[in-house]
Amino acid sequence: MAYTSKLIEEAINEISALPGIGKKTALRLVLFLLKSNPEQTERLATSLHKLRSQIQYCQKCHNISDTTLCSICANPHRDTGLICVVENIQDVIAIENTAQYKGIYHVLGGLISPVEGIGPEQLYIEHLVQRVQQEQPQEIIFALSTTIEGDTTTFYITKKLKEFPVKLSNIARGVAVGSELEYTDEMTLARSIKERILYH
Amino acid sequence: MAYTSKLIEEAINEISALPGIGKKTALRLVLFLLKSNPEQTERLATSLHKLRSQIQYCQKCHNISDTTLCSICANPHRDTGLICVVENIQDVIAIENTAQYKGIYHVLGGLISPVEGIGPEQLYIEHLVQRVQQEQPQEIIFALSTTIEGDTTTFYITKKLKEFPVKLSNIARGVAVGSELEYTDEMTLARSIKERILYH
Repeated sequence: MAYTSKLIEEAINEISALPGIGKKTALRLVLFLLKSNPEQTERLATSLHKLRSQIQYCQKCHNISDTTLCSICANPHRDTGLICVVENIQDVIAIENTAQYKGIYHVLGGLISPVEGIGPEQLYIEHLVQRVQQEQPQEIIFALSTTIEGDTTTFYITKKLKEFPVKLSNIARGVAVGSELEYTDEMTLARSIKERILYH
Repeated sequence: MAYTSKLIEEAINEISALPGIGKKTALRLVLFLLKSNPEQTERLATSLHKLRSQIQYCQKCHNISDTTLCSICANPHRDTGLICVVENIQDVIAIENTAQYKGIYHVLGGLISPVEGIGPEQLYIEHLVQRVQQEQPQEIIFALSTTIEGDTTTFYITKKLKEFPVKLSNIARGVAVGSELEYTDEMTLARSIKERILYH
């Protein structure tokens, strides 16, 4: 496409470099910004600039944070005896939104994936072992994806943590709440039968 | 949703204020930016800042421009005897992409719409009349939407331009190229029959 303005062209190129946004959507967004209040664009540009230049990662759990210790780790009401191991920040947000979990987290920053060339040393696994040693939590809950990578990572970490006096658990896998049995895939259904919960 | 970072929250709020982007998509974009090269975010923020602060509108045709005269108006190879009247900048881009039109443009900045409270004085209609007076073009081509607002605007401007020795025309309306007759709506089909083109 040809644009009569280099400024528009640059903005469109930068916006369409984002995932899921094409040139047409980028143009629509640019024209929206040009029509709306100049302050809106300024706020957007500033927030993006600040996001990347000021963001930090929690030194304890590697969750995203504005300070050296994230608001979850710094909260005295959270149960520090419970550490939930997750792949990334989205997972922390997802679990936090349930408002059911009162423990703390440990963000691995990815999963072990030989295909993508990601080994254990590229993830915060060694740091988790150190935390178990120092903080002496009662339980580590694994909440990784049910994929080969997720299972491999869980397996690798559980082996590393065997020597410590800590309970290891995995979040339950099964048929989703509200979903119909007949539409559940065989793997999930098989697993939900195998890992059935006894009522009494 | 609860985020552990104010910076993320601000960025998500600003991004999700854009049309068609919700909180979840905004979060996905923010996490993409956090994972990718810091320069990418910087370029995006800078391009947005420059877009809004440096952009100008062509003094002649009101098209978007980096200079006081847009690249189309400044191009000596364009036919200045032909002015195409369009609603907005998207329409200029759409027509430019056909690579068939060699004339210049006049961007109205909207359409007359009593419902939305947009009157002729809020659009660049008076300026178009001035241009016809001063530039003395041979033909004015109307390329406005086939809506009540578009037709009203075309009618209003044609009445204003009647006194000048200039040809007035409208782009052809009809069945789209490549589209099947049976799926064309009745209004379009009726118009394409009424405004049929004689072969000889």
